[in-house]
Amino acid sequence: MIEVYSWPTPNGHKVHIMLEECGLPYRVIPVDIGSGAQFEPGFLTISPNNKIPAIVDPEGPDGKPISLFESGAILLYLAGKTGRLLPAGTAAKYEVLQWLMFQMGSIGPMLGQAHHFRIYAPQKIDYAIERYSKEAGRLYGVMNKRLAASTYIAGKDYSIADIAIFPWLRSWKNQGVEMGDYPHLKGWFDEIARRPAVQRGVEVLAGARKPLIDEKAREVLFGDTQYKRH
Amino acid sequence: MIEVYSWPTPNGHKVHIMLEECGLPYRVIPVDIGSGAQFEPGFLTISPNNKIPAIVDPEGPDGKPISLFESGAILLYLAGKTGRLLPAGTAAKYEVLQWLMFQMGSIGPMLGQAHHFRIYAPQKIDYAIERYSKEAGRLYGVMNKRLAASTYIAGKDYSIADIAIFPWLRSWKNQGVEMGDYPHLKGWFDEIARRPAVQRGVEVLAGARKPLIDEKAREVLFGDTQYKRH
Repeated sequence: MIEVYSWPTPNGHKVHIMLEECGLPYRVIPVDIGSGAQFEPGFLTISPNNKIPAIVDPEGPDGKPISLFESGAILLYLAGKTGRLLPAGTAAKYEVLQWLMFQMGSIGPMLGQAHHFRIYAPQKIDYAIERYSKEAGRLYGVMNKRLAASTYIAGKDYSIADIAIFPWLRSWKNQGVEMGDYPHLKGWFDEIARRPAVQRGVEVLAGARKPLIDEKAREVLFGDTQYKRH
Repeated sequence: MIEVYSWPTPNGHKVHIMLEECGLPYRVIPVDIGSGAQFEPGFLTISPNNKIPAIVDPEGPDGKPISLFESGAILLYLAGKTGRLLPAGTAAKYEVLQWLMFQMGSIGPMLGQAHHFRIYAPQKIDYAIERYSKEAGRLYGVMNKRLAASTYIAGKDYSIADIAIFPWLRSWKNQGVEMGDYPHLKGWFDEIARRPAVQRGVEVLAGARKPLIDEKAREVLFGDTQYKRH
């Protein structure tokens, strides 16, 4: 059974949703990133960048176990393993890959910075709040325009690109945007949110996350605990 | 011949290096992101997220033209087209994909924020400078540890994951780190820098970029020109 080292964050939810969509059995191992569990040596062996999610599949390629980190790579692996949610045709496959990379390179990191400066940072810095809220609006505009012309983000079929983006938009209220301003994006979002596998995926580890962030968690999450050099 | 819409930035250089490594003929079409060329409608048709690089390959899959944006997707496409720099074996392939995603999700966006707050932002914000300089140091530590145990970032062979990371590290002086503090990473960096294809790749469009950033360029690059919603 696939072991999923995870936490209820957007990157964790991507993998939970994918596993639910594919109907793969899995076991979740919580990695409490608020208490610093991502820095433990055992976890770093699997995920050297000290981030969730990571997976271990005892039935990997050629029957050998495989461990993987980075949510985007895990989505591609699970799509390859099951033949699901990534088209086989070359042109359609690269259409999905470019939008998956758009999520990995822009949606995740930039909306993550919006969350940080709008919600978590210990000081309110107008310049940074404006920078990342504007970028969130720009990205929502890009997706809205795309979804005016396309049923799903990477074409006519639901794919791992949709799964990668969706969990990040659940927190739109923390990003300085108004979902209702982007009607094509909102229609897509509402449709994805109704999928049973998605509803199961976002419930994984629900309740594990503490509602209020304490000082220790803030320190671990936001950089005072430095990764040790070797 | 492949058309490359590009500019001499780390993401542009990734694609220039890959094309040189593969010996593919290409033609570069400069997109001056300092003057706002990335917002022109013709370019947005190819690259809806208004970023360079993007490519058009008139000899794409099934003999049909294909256009692609996102440097990570372009690297995968060129690797697939040529059979180069991405292993065929499944386990080795996912090893490369996870480090490529590490570049797309962390190295690019976070070092990009370090550049912004350390060099380009119109005000000096200590909190943000410290945040992204620390993150740069953490990421350099992750790569240094990896390269203590592995010849290349994704294993024993040079791959698109190395090509993706290398151009971002050329500006280490702008990221608040000292390359000499990371000896395994420095050894890898120096070796990649000596490759003839890499040396040709980083020279593409050299001189096109203006050395000083003017007010108009600052405005376009850093968010006052909003993407129009549709």
